[in-house]
Amino acid sequence: MSSPKLFYEDFEPDRVFDFAPKTVSAEEIVDFASEFDPQPMHLSEDAGKASILGGLAASGWHSSCIMMRMMINAYLLDSASEGAPGIDIMEWKKPVLAGDTLTGRSIVTAARPMRSRPHIGIVTFRHELDNQRDERVLVSENSIMFRRRNVEGDTL
Amino acid sequence: MSSPKLFYEDFEPDRVFDFAPKTVSAEEIVDFASEFDPQPMHLSEDAGKASILGGLAASGWHSSCIMMRMMINAYLLDSASEGAPGIDIMEWKKPVLAGDTLTGRSIVTAARPMRSRPHIGIVTFRHELDNQRDERVLVSENSIMFRRRNVEGDTL
Repeated sequence: MSSPKLFYEDFEPDRVFDFAPKTVSAEEIVDFASEFDPQPMHLSEDAGKASILGGLAASGWHSSCIMMRMMINAYLLDSASEGAPGIDIMEWKKPVLAGDTLTGRSIVTAARPMRSRPHIGIVTFRHELDNQRDERVLVSENSIMFRRRNVEGDTL
Repeated sequence: MSSPKLFYEDFEPDRVFDFAPKTVSAEEIVDFASEFDPQPMHLSEDAGKASILGGLAASGWHSSCIMMRMMINAYLLDSASEGAPGIDIMEWKKPVLAGDTLTGRSIVTAARPMRSRPHIGIVTFRHELDNQRDERVLVSENSIMFRRRNVEGDTL
């Protein structure tokens, strides 16, 4: 691995990290649902149409995981991330339907050094996903730990 | 589909739904991470050992999705579920390592009819996952909508 480009100090409040667009196929919706969330509306177009979702729709968990991969590509894999303790908010606001193209972003809402580990800082984000109809489909908030630039210390 | 066995009325506060045990393999950890969370500690034993996680460890998102499948098998697929609007709390408390066997449960913490849709009720759960060392690895809370038994109405 090359050394990371983004450290704690780079995640300043209000900084925005835009995600590359991602189109979600029927095949990947069904593949994911078959493994983790085999409810009918995530497995076939007919059952999706008969449901409130209005068509073959990704599991909310799938949408969340797709967003994680968009975050990875946008900034996390280039960063000194030390992982996250969980998720504070996850709202599945609209269905993600087969063929939808998602865009989105992570916005830094707060950043503070970790008292117990001076070489780590905690960054809080708001994450958003939109579809090609300009509808917001997902909103989430969580905190991620990053190593500080030029501060000595073991990894977390 | 056969008609569901579990309706809103069956999710009484304090009722516990136990999950069948699930062993998590190295292969499925790497497969999931390659698609959704390709950080080194989720991709190889060596990188996992060099991290705070102490070994090849599932992405937190993967642990969450495994829990979803355990919920599906324990009660959701037999229920009149109308889906969930999101997640209120998701805490990844301990790493899930290759070879770990997870057990867990969903506990009903509250239930109330939906004012705007009298044929739907909203059930709030606390979900827990433990490993074979009796460590709690995941805690989550969310609400799921279920149709009421013998109350007429369109699907949500």
